[in-house]
Amino acid sequence: MAKGKEVVVSPDDLSKEFKEYSVAEFFKRNRQMLGYTGKVRSLTTVAHEYVTNALDACEDSNVLPELLVEIQVLENGHVKLITEDNGTGIPKQNIGQALGKLLAGTKFMQRQQKRGQQGIGAAYATLFSQITTGKETHVKTSVGDGKVVECDVSIDINSNEPVLHNVKEYSAKFRGTRIEVELAEVDYNRSTYGAFEYLRRTALANPHSQITLVEPNKEITVFPRASKDIPVKPKKIQPHPLGITTSDLMDMAGISQARKISSMLQNEFSRLSAEKVKEISSMCPNIDLDRAPKNLQWSEAEKLVDAFKRIKWIAPETDALQPITTDQLRKSLKNLLEPEELRISERPPKVFRGGIPFMVEAAIAYGGKAGAVGSESKGEALRFANRVPLLFDAGNCAITEAVKTIDWARYDLKDWENMPVSIFVNFTSVYVPYTGTGKLAIAAEEEIVTEIRNALMECARGISTYIRTLKRAADQEERKKIFFKYITEVAQCLDEITGTDRKQIEEKLRKIAVEKTSILVSADEEEAEKDLAELEKAAEKEMVEDGESEE
Amino acid sequence: MAKGKEVVVSPDDLSKEFKEYSVAEFFKRNRQMLGYTGKVRSLTTVAHEYVTNALDACEDSNVLPELLVEIQVLENGHVKLITEDNGTGIPKQNIGQALGKLLAGTKFMQRQQKRGQQGIGAAYATLFSQITTGKETHVKTSVGDGKVVECDVSIDINSNEPVLHNVKEYSAKFRGTRIEVELAEVDYNRSTYGAFEYLRRTALANPHSQITLVEPNKEITVFPRASKDIPVKPKKIQPHPLGITTSDLMDMAGISQARKISSMLQNEFSRLSAEKVKEISSMCPNIDLDRAPKNLQWSEAEKLVDAFKRIKWIAPETDALQPITTDQLRKSLKNLLEPEELRISERPPKVFRGGIPFMVEAAIAYGGKAGAVGSESKGEALRFANRVPLLFDAGNCAITEAVKTIDWARYDLKDWENMPVSIFVNFTSVYVPYTGTGKLAIAAEEEIVTEIRNALMECARGISTYIRTLKRAADQEERKKIFFKYITEVAQCLDEITGTDRKQIEEKLRKIAVEKTSILVSADEEEAEKDLAELEKAAEKEMVEDGESEE
Repeated sequence: MAKGKEVVVSPDDLSKEFKEYSVAEFFKRNRQMLGYTGKVRSLTTVAHEYVTNALDACEDSNVLPELLVEIQVLENGHVKLITEDNGTGIPKQNIGQALGKLLAGTKFMQRQQKRGQQGIGAAYATLFSQITTGKETHVKTSVGDGKVVECDVSIDINSNEPVLHNVKEYSAKFRGTRIEVELAEVDYNRSTYGAFEYLRRTALANPHSQITLVEPNKEITVFPRASKDIPVKPKKIQPHPLGITTSDLMDMAGISQARKISSMLQNEFSRLSAEKVKEISSMCPNIDLDRAPKNLQWSEAEKLVDAFKRIKWIAPETDALQPITTDQLRKSLKNLLEPEELRISERPPKVFRGGIPFMVEAAIAYGGKAGAVGSESKGEALRFANRVPLLFDAGNCAITEAVKTIDWARYDLKDWENMPVSIFVNFTSVYVPYTGTGKLAIAAEEEIVTEIRNALMECARGISTYIRTLKRAADQEERKKIFFKYITEVAQCLDEITGTDRKQIEEKLRKIAVEKTSILVSADEEEAEKDLAELEKAAEKEMVEDGESEE
Repeated sequence: MAKGKEVVVSPDDLSKEFKEYSVAEFFKRNRQMLGYTGKVRSLTTVAHEYVTNALDACEDSNVLPELLVEIQVLENGHVKLITEDNGTGIPKQNIGQALGKLLAGTKFMQRQQKRGQQGIGAAYATLFSQITTGKETHVKTSVGDGKVVECDVSIDINSNEPVLHNVKEYSAKFRGTRIEVELAEVDYNRSTYGAFEYLRRTALANPHSQITLVEPNKEITVFPRASKDIPVKPKKIQPHPLGITTSDLMDMAGISQARKISSMLQNEFSRLSAEKVKEISSMCPNIDLDRAPKNLQWSEAEKLVDAFKRIKWIAPETDALQPITTDQLRKSLKNLLEPEELRISERPPKVFRGGIPFMVEAAIAYGGKAGAVGSESKGEALRFANRVPLLFDAGNCAITEAVKTIDWARYDLKDWENMPVSIFVNFTSVYVPYTGTGKLAIAAEEEIVTEIRNALMECARGISTYIRTLKRAADQEERKKIFFKYITEVAQCLDEITGTDRKQIEEKLRKIAVEKTSILVSADEEEAEKDLAELEKAAEKEMVEDGESEE
C-alpha cells in the first residue's frame, strides 16, 4: 500500500460537499426498511398498504367494505395491481398528499386503534412503481357531490412533492377509490408470503368485509362477508399516566391549551383525578403545578413521570380497543374454514407495562378446511395485530413464542403442524409493541406471551375434548357393532325361554346399547376436561417459576 | 357488539385531518429502524455513528486518526458519551446540518467506499439525546484559520431544522471535533454488543487508528496504533454497466451534461468503450442514441439495461476498493491479539452480480489473546464490512453462513468456539448488499459466501498445520525424553564394547535424536498440508454440486 501523506484539508473544501436529501430519496435507497425485500414479499407489501388503507377508509365512513384486488402479469413481465374499495374516497385537494408524498396522511400519531399508522405506505407504493417501472400510479376516487376525479400520480423525488397529471373531474355513480399501479421486481404466487394468503387472512380477521381477488390466471376467489355488523369505531383515548415517557409529557405540555400544568394533568390524562394531582404534587413539592404547561422543564417532567410510576392507578380504560369479538370471529372462521370443531377464547382485556391496555383473541379450528391452504393436513398459526395479518418475521413474535412453548401433547395436538388445524391469534391494542422495523412481529414481553398462552390453552382444551370424543366414539361404535352382531341371537334365545316377542326384545336391547355407549362418552368428556384444567394449573405455576429463574 | 350504521362521511370531513410530518418526527417514532433497540445496543449505535464519522473525517483530511471515547454514568442514571477526533473539523456553516438535521451530509449517494452513507447517523444521535433526556448536544470543532467553534445543537422536530445555542468562536490550538451527548434509555457493559467490543473490533480493522476508551469506572483502555500508513483514499468510480438498474440509468440521464445518450454511455460508465456503444446500438436499433440524455424514455432505458446484460464485459475496475491490506492486517492482529499463530488469506478482488467488485480479507488467529474477551478459551467470529464491525444480526449474514458451512473438523478446529481462536472477515465493496434495515449483515449471495469460505479455508489450512505441529512436537518431545533417558546407559555399553569415549558417543546420539525428531516434524507438516489441499478440492467440488442441486 502506498502511504498517504498528512495533508490537512481545510473545512472550506468540505463545505461545498454538504447536501440535503429528501425523505423520498432516502427511502428510494432504503426500500428494505419498508418491507420491500424479495419479489413476492414486495408485491404483498404493496397489496397490504392499499388494503389496510381501504379497510380504514370504509371504517371511517361507516360502510361495509367491498374490496377488489386484481393482479395482472403484463407482457413485459411487469405486474399490474388494481385495488378498489367502496369507502368515502379521497378529498380532491388531498389526492397528491395521500398518494404522492411520504409522511403525509390522517393517521400519524393518533391515539386511536388503526391499521395503518405512518402516512408512508400508499405513497411509497407510488414511489416503488416509479423506481421500478418509471410509471405513474392511476387513481380514480369519489370526491363528494356525485363527482369523481381521475388522475396519474408520481412523486418528485428531490422534493418529496406530489406531481399530478391528466386530472379529470366528472359526475358519475361511483363511490370509493380505485388505484392501478404497475410494478417490476415483484412476483406473485400462492405461497404463505403471497398476496392470496394475505387476503385470506385479512378476510378471517375482518368478517364484515367482502374481498374479491382476481389472480393473474384470471381465477376469481371471493372471500365472502360473514357478518353485516360494522365494527363500532374505537374511541380516541387519553393516555394513561403509566403509558407515557418524559418526551411524551414534554410534547403534550408543548401543545396543551390548559392554563396550568395541574389542569393539563387532570384533563388530558386517563384516570388522573384531582386527588391524584394532589398526590403527585405532594410527591414533587419543588414543582409548581400552577405554572403554564409550556414552562414545564425536562427535569421536572422526568420527576413527574417518575412519580406516576410510584402511584397506584386504576387500570386504563379498554373501550378504545376494537376487538373482532367472539361472535364475529366465530362467524368468520365458520364461514371460511368450515371446521368440524371450533373453540374461541373469551377473555377480558389486560394491561402491559402497567398502563397499556391490550386484548388477545385466540381460536383453534379443527378439521374441515382448517389448516394451511394447498397442503393436505398441514397446521398453520395465523398471527394478527389489530386485525392485520403478520406474514413475515414469525421468529421474533410473541404469538410464535406462545405457540412454541405450549405443551401441545397435553391437548392431543402434539403433531398439530401435520394436522388440519388453524391456530388464530389477534392482538389488539392502541399501542402494539412491534419488534424490528417492519411491523411484522409483536415483542415477546412476558405479560403478552402469558396472556396469549392462556388464551390458546383455553381453546386447546376444547379441541382436545373433541379429539378424544372422536376417538372414544370410534371405540364405542366398534363395541356397539359387536353387541348388535349378537342381539338377534340373544333375542331369539330369550324369546324361546321367556316367550316374549323376539322383535320387542331386540328393540329394547338396541335402545340399551345406544344409551350405555353415549353415557360412557359424556362421562369421559367431563373427566377429561377436569384432568386438563388441573394439568394446566400445574403448568402455569411451572411457567411462572421458570420466568422467575430466568431473571 | 353494537351495530354501526352506514352513514356516509363526506370527503370534506376527512380533508381537515390530513397532516404532514417531518422526517425527524417519523424517526422519533421509529427509532428501531435506525438500530435503537435495547439499551446496550442503543449506546453502541450512538458510539458507532460518531466513530465512523470520525474515521471518515480523518481519512478525508489525510491524518492518522487519534480517537477518544469516554463513557460516564451520571448521578441521575443518564449516560454521557464523549467522542473526540483529530480530523479537519466541521465547517462552521455546516455544523447545524451535520448534527441537527436528518438527511443532510457529504456522503449520501457517492460512488465511493465510505463507512457512513446515509447522512442520518450523527443527527439522529442528537435527536435521540433530545427525546430521552431533553438535552442539547455539545460540539467543539475546528473551523480553519486557527479558529474553534463551540455550541449546543438540537433539532426542531416539527421542521427537521437545526437549532444552535450558545455559539462561541475563538482562537485555539485544537484540531478535530469533540461531541458530548447525554442519553437515557441506554446501558453500558462489556458484552459482545457493548461499546468496548465495538471499539476493539474497530481497532482491529483500522490499524492506522489509535483509539482510547474511558469506561464509566474510569478504566482507560488504549487500542494502540499498529501502523503509521494512512490508507490510500479510494477512487470515486464510474458504475459498471452490469451494476445498475433502469432507475439508475434514468437518474444518470436526468443529470448528465453529455450532449448525446451515446456519449453519456461512453463517458459516464466504466468499461464502456466506443465499440461497446456500437454493439449496444446494433442490439437496440430503435433507440436513437444521438438524442440528448434527458429525452431518454423509461422503456428505452429498460431495453438498454437489458442489452447490458447480454454483452460480454471486461470485469469492473477494483481500485475503488480500499482493503485493509495483508500487511496492515497482520500488524493489527499481532498488535492486539498477540497470537501464537496467524494466517491471513491473500486473494484478489472478485465480482458479484456480474458488475460489482468486492474483496474478502480473512484471517484466523490462534492462541495468545485470540478469542473472545473476558472468557477463557472462547472462539469468536469477527465480521466487518468496509472495516466497520458488524455486531448485530449475525444470523442472516454471509460471513456467518460461510463460517457455519465449513467443515472445521478437517482443520482440527471442530471445537473452535471453545478454543482460543479469532476468525476475522472483512468484506470490502463500494456497494455492500446489506440485508434488512440496520446495515448489520451482508446478504448471503452465493458468490460472496463461496469467496468467504475459500478465504477462510485458506487460513484454516495453515492453522491446522500449526495445531498438528504442536501436537507432533509434544509427541516427539516425549519420545526424545525417553530416548535421552537411556542415552547414558547405551553410551556406557558402547564405550565398554568399542573403547570409544563415552562422552563422545553420548554427544553423537543426542545430535541424532534431535535431528531425527525435527525431520519427522517437518515431513509431517508437508504431508499434512498436501492432505488438506486435496480434501479442500473435494469439498469445493461438493459444494458446487450442492449449490447446483438447490437451484
